[in-house]
Amino acid sequence: MKVDGRHYRSIWLEADGWSVGAIDQRRLPHEFIVERICSCVAAADAIATMRVRGAPLIGAMAALGLALGMREDSSDCGLARAYDRLIVARPTAINLKWALDEMCATLAPLAPELRVAAAYERAAAILEQDVAINQAIGAHGLPLIDAVAARKGLRESVNVLTHCNAGWLATVDWGTATAPIYLAHERGVSIHVWVDETRPRNQGASLTAWELGHHGVAHTVIPDNTGGHLMQHGMVDLVIVGTDRVAANGDVCNKIGTYLKALAARDNEVPFYVALPSPTIDFAIEDGVRDIPIEMRDGSEVSHITGCSADGRLETVRIVPEGAAVANYGFDVTPARLVTGLITEPGLLKAERSALAAAFPERTAHGN
Amino acid sequence: MKVDGRHYRSIWLEADGWSVGAIDQRRLPHEFIVERICSCVAAADAIATMRVRGAPLIGAMAALGLALGMREDSSDCGLARAYDRLIVARPTAINLKWALDEMCATLAPLAPELRVAAAYERAAAILEQDVAINQAIGAHGLPLIDAVAARKGLRESVNVLTHCNAGWLATVDWGTATAPIYLAHERGVSIHVWVDETRPRNQGASLTAWELGHHGVAHTVIPDNTGGHLMQHGMVDLVIVGTDRVAANGDVCNKIGTYLKALAARDNEVPFYVALPSPTIDFAIEDGVRDIPIEMRDGSEVSHITGCSADGRLETVRIVPEGAAVANYGFDVTPARLVTGLITEPGLLKAERSALAAAFPERTAHGN
Repeated sequence: MKVDGRHYRSIWLEADGWSVGAIDQRRLPHEFIVERICSCVAAADAIATMRVRGAPLIGAMAALGLALGMREDSSDCGLARAYDRLIVARPTAINLKWALDEMCATLAPLAPELRVAAAYERAAAILEQDVAINQAIGAHGLPLIDAVAARKGLRESVNVLTHCNAGWLATVDWGTATAPIYLAHERGVSIHVWVDETRPRNQGASLTAWELGHHGVAHTVIPDNTGGHLMQHGMVDLVIVGTDRVAANGDVCNKIGTYLKALAARDNEVPFYVALPSPTIDFAIEDGVRDIPIEMRDGSEVSHITGCSADGRLETVRIVPEGAAVANYGFDVTPARLVTGLITEPGLLKAERSALAAAFPERTAHGN
Repeated sequence: MKVDGRHYRSIWLEADGWSVGAIDQRRLPHEFIVERICSCVAAADAIATMRVRGAPLIGAMAALGLALGMREDSSDCGLARAYDRLIVARPTAINLKWALDEMCATLAPLAPELRVAAAYERAAAILEQDVAINQAIGAHGLPLIDAVAARKGLRESVNVLTHCNAGWLATVDWGTATAPIYLAHERGVSIHVWVDETRPRNQGASLTAWELGHHGVAHTVIPDNTGGHLMQHGMVDLVIVGTDRVAANGDVCNKIGTYLKALAARDNEVPFYVALPSPTIDFAIEDGVRDIPIEMRDGSEVSHITGCSADGRLETVRIVPEGAAVANYGFDVTPARLVTGLITEPGLLKAERSALAAAFPERTAHGN
């Protein structure tokens, strides 16, 4: 999507043919900095510190990280070490494991001297596949927005609420939750996005608002507390969020607070959609609420916040009493019963065990 | 309650017998500053800028503000002007109007030369009445906590979740939602409070955490997004919040985001209580969701945040992209069907039209 009128992806292979370019997402929205990542360790660090974040993008970055690892040591031991180093970078994202397993399936059977080229080739294919998946998600989500637009007529915007950042910054391009939004915008549909700021890391205020703004999509940043009131008063036509993992029963793990918005949507008969690439579905997890592990993150993300001071410096301030105990649960799980539909690259699916099993018979056969 | 081991109220009459002392709540939790308020205009300003905030405390401050106004001009015109000046300071709090109407009912029949003394006397009574009301709320709420404590046994704490600040800082003393908590703590019950930070103004992180900490009550600050996850996993025994206005049908207007917590409580069978002094019930409003006006506050409260820098300065930083549109709805309305009970000074009431009418027959007779 566009930044200052120029097209960008969130990560890319540099012109040197081996190092990786990436937007440092921790500096947004105040600074737009591109960094060059030259080692497997640096790739793992970029994921762990959330300079590169978003479930699909983590997978793509891990694939390129493994390619960087092969450059350093393409032996069986090197492959195992690179895998181990990357898999621990973030505990929740299923895409990380998926991408690393894909890479290993390609590389393990090959002689070490063939692995570097094969790794870059497979990683590039994973990146292109991500873009194609998101475009398909956009195409399947567009009719949901079009239907509201047709009902509301030309004079009113379609109001979509989203939580966190499942935008193009969270993927290689287009985004998941935002793909239908960007596509509708491209087709001339009048659309407005309510952007949850998404405490504690504020990915909505920092990333989603930034990318929508740079691409020219109308939006308003709101505190996470606001969505219920908006839905109660008819100001939200549909909710679209992303997800880090969907269980076999359709339960949706996403950024902490998603569950609260799903409850509000249900209470006000607002459709609640989740957009995802199908690898995000984890058929090994039977019951999402019960079994998806929830990442506990550092308390400093709650107690401190970074912003831009009046004189343009990035400044971190403490916003709780000194020494106060804080808790920082990264995700929550929205029960499938609250989900209107899953927008995936093969199409719109019900968030039900039987629907998911029917859509991906090859994965459930050995997944269970 | 206690600050650094010494007992404080949130506002008080100074030793000079006419000026008003108040804790500047905008400086908390980083600075504990007491200010002296010497005019009706200053009192209105303290309310409007939220240096003095919380529905019951706004009423108490308005009463003292009107007394200050009488000192300046005790004529009929002076009384009307002081009333007008104070009533517009905050649009949502019913207590503001209640206190001002009480004051006027006392003062209007009197000769102007009698009004100053009468105003201070009536204001002092309003302050003492607030303390007594909150103690009664504490007494009626205590059995709810005791029942959980009895069920859980000595080894586990009772976990209460609260939103915003309905603590002693929001009243003259004790608080509304916190009164049962402080009383349970005083009685030796092991209690732990999940404190919603309460964006955008962070009254939970800034005020509730500060006052619980200074009084020695165990607590943990959480992002507003967290409550649903905690309730889903059995980590909340009950929710107690305050309110700015309750409608005749039991709908509860409180800080934005309260509705989302009530939905989560219902979805997980966690009792959801609202603590309030009975003047907070507005029998003139038939349907809270439909008819309670919601204050829209300045966008800068969402786009900017103030905290304490590493070197101890108070610093305000921008946390959205430059120029981003923001919306700042101050309150939402929780439908009565989600409220387990109203803890009021006469006792525990159902959030139902008939129960409220039966409890306050004298107010409904002319209220409808």
